Amino acid sequence: MQTIFFKNKPRIVATGTIAGPKECAGVVGKYVDKALTDDMFGESTYEKAECKMLSYAISQAIQNARLEEKDVDLLISGDLLNQIISASFAARDYDFPFLGVYGACSTMAESLAIAAAFVNAGYYKKIIAATGSHFSSAERQYRYPLELGNTRPPQAQWTVTGAGGALIADMGGDNDLKNAPAITSATFGKVVDYGITDVNNMGAAMSPSTSLGILQHLKDTGRNADYYDLIVTGDLGALGSRILKDLTWEKGVDITGNHVDCGEIIYKVIEKEFQGGSGAGCSAVVFNSYIMDKLKKRELNKVLFVATGALLSTVSSGQGESIPGIAHAVAIENVE
Amino acid sequence: MQTIFFKNKPRIVATGTIAGPKECAGVVGKYVDKALTDDMFGESTYEKAECKMLSYAISQAIQNARLEEKDVDLLISGDLLNQIISASFAARDYDFPFLGVYGACSTMAESLAIAAAFVNAGYYKKIIAATGSHFSSAERQYRYPLELGNTRPPQAQWTVTGAGGALIADMGGDNDLKNAPAITSATFGKVVDYGITDVNNMGAAMSPSTSLGILQHLKDTGRNADYYDLIVTGDLGALGSRILKDLTWEKGVDITGNHVDCGEIIYKVIEKEFQGGSGAGCSAVVFNSYIMDKLKKRELNKVLFVATGALLSTVSSGQGESIPGIAHAVAIENVE
Repeated sequence: MQTIFFKNKPRIVATGTIAGPKECAGVVGKYVDKALTDDMFGESTYEKAECKMLSYAISQAIQNARLEEKDVDLLISGDLLNQIISASFAARDYDFPFLGVYGACSTMAESLAIAAAFVNAGYYKKIIAATGSHFSSAERQYRYPLELGNTRPPQAQWTVTGAGGALIADMGGDNDLKNAPAITSATFGKVVDYGITDVNNMGAAMSPSTSLGILQHLKDTGRNADYYDLIVTGDLGALGSRILKDLTWEKGVDITGNHVDCGEIIYKVIEKEFQGGSGAGCSAVVFNSYIMDKLKKRELNKVLFVATGALLSTVSSGQGESIPGIAHAVAIENVE
Repeated sequence: MQTIFFKNKPRIVATGTIAGPKECAGVVGKYVDKALTDDMFGESTYEKAECKMLSYAISQAIQNARLEEKDVDLLISGDLLNQIISASFAARDYDFPFLGVYGACSTMAESLAIAAAFVNAGYYKKIIAATGSHFSSAERQYRYPLELGNTRPPQAQWTVTGAGGALIADMGGDNDLKNAPAITSATFGKVVDYGITDVNNMGAAMSPSTSLGILQHLKDTGRNADYYDLIVTGDLGALGSRILKDLTWEKGVDITGNHVDCGEIIYKVIEKEFQGGSGAGCSAVVFNSYIMDKLKKRELNKVLFVATGALLSTVSSGQGESIPGIAHAVAIENVE
């Protein structure tokens, strides 16, 4: 059994989100707390801009929950940069403890799952789970200097500039929270490697672990795929989503009717983004703004959020390794 | 309250450890499961050797617990390499879920604490917490190519080549486990930055967060420092340990009588290691071999294990950032 259950139903009390100009031209534009007009966010480097976005998402989640910094017990965060410096340096500005995680683009689900597990067990009452990414910092770290103007192949995705954070709280006796969406279970994923070596084809690298994660979650919970109003995957993009649907279909599970991918929907895909968005910020922004809005308005009531990560580095690829994937699934439901 | 308590007393059932030739010339030599004579461990790159050591520690912990891979519910691991590739690629070889964490050299305590929290809450029955590091992979990632033969300044530490893993289990009705050391509480640390910018002086960068972490743990638990037979810090080295003792003494707490630092004791410091060992593998090897041996033999009964991390990257330092530190504290006690 990979799935753990949260009988005390920790609530997602509030979220905070921010995204870049390109992202805000798409579906999330009217749902984020802050739509940047300048993706440098007033900073001198891409990395500092990424860190500042993450801090913004954290602070905004606290503010949207009508809480103060002193009310928060723990921050769980990570990001794509080497040694997760965005998360570590964001955490430096707050007076609460920090638990650093790394799951590449699966970080939003991983941090949400740990937060829910800790709140459900009564260890802490209020935890923030957050992550983000920046197109320009990711591009120069993982691929080439932007100034080189490299051509992107058609299977490529575009790293999202944005950040999102969620405040997970014990409902306690607080009736104000009873309508907030609850995290009811989580399925931590296995590392799966089907041998993809193309660093531009993240969707293909991540879809096997995503498929296995969803199937495992359904098996552990005894649910059919249509139990969920929506199965939202992290950032497989258009190609990865097609592979995912094929892989699950091969195992007798049809998710074509209720599946959507954050990477596939975030951009108005016209030209340069090709397969759609990627990056830890992709699912963080889409989930914490657009999806959470629909959960709060009860347009969605049962959502399986499956953020997916490609576990590579420039060193691993340079040494000839293929790209393992991971996917963590978190069930979010309106429970009353 | 930063400290969380584990009333079900999850046990450290077994550990697995491996270390390089230089490390095994020191105190851990006769306690590790495998003492390497060749720090390449038969691999073609330092990174692959580091990953293989981590896999060895994981498999050895399972074997020493007289369990099989199928009995393990979850692996919690991370390491110093960009995108924690040692942990991710080690996890690829096992058929259990993986939760990736990053806390630099605090990873052993962070992963132990999460494992204990999950087992205590009944989410999983058997979890492995593991980490490691390799001198040569760390040196070329964080500092200079080894071939350059750079001079090391006297405040420098030496990254440990080694890995350690612990299997944390619910005691359940298993009387065989009742004598195993228990994890009784954990204190997640805050990110603290006193403005150190010297990337060779990790001990100074980490000692403020370590001091605050220890003081917070003692406050939350209502204990005096002498409650513990030993307060073992991660890898502050000789200079960092002196700073730590000064900082805690300034706050009225004297730990000079029962403090030891994994970095300070791991090498027979003669010449080139200067302040001692560092790296995620430092506290992982010392704790899981030497300290656990003394706990199992009841030569020690109450240990506070405080692994410490310096949260920098080459990019953050290159952009003029100072070095924040973090320390997570885990209490391990013989409870009956």
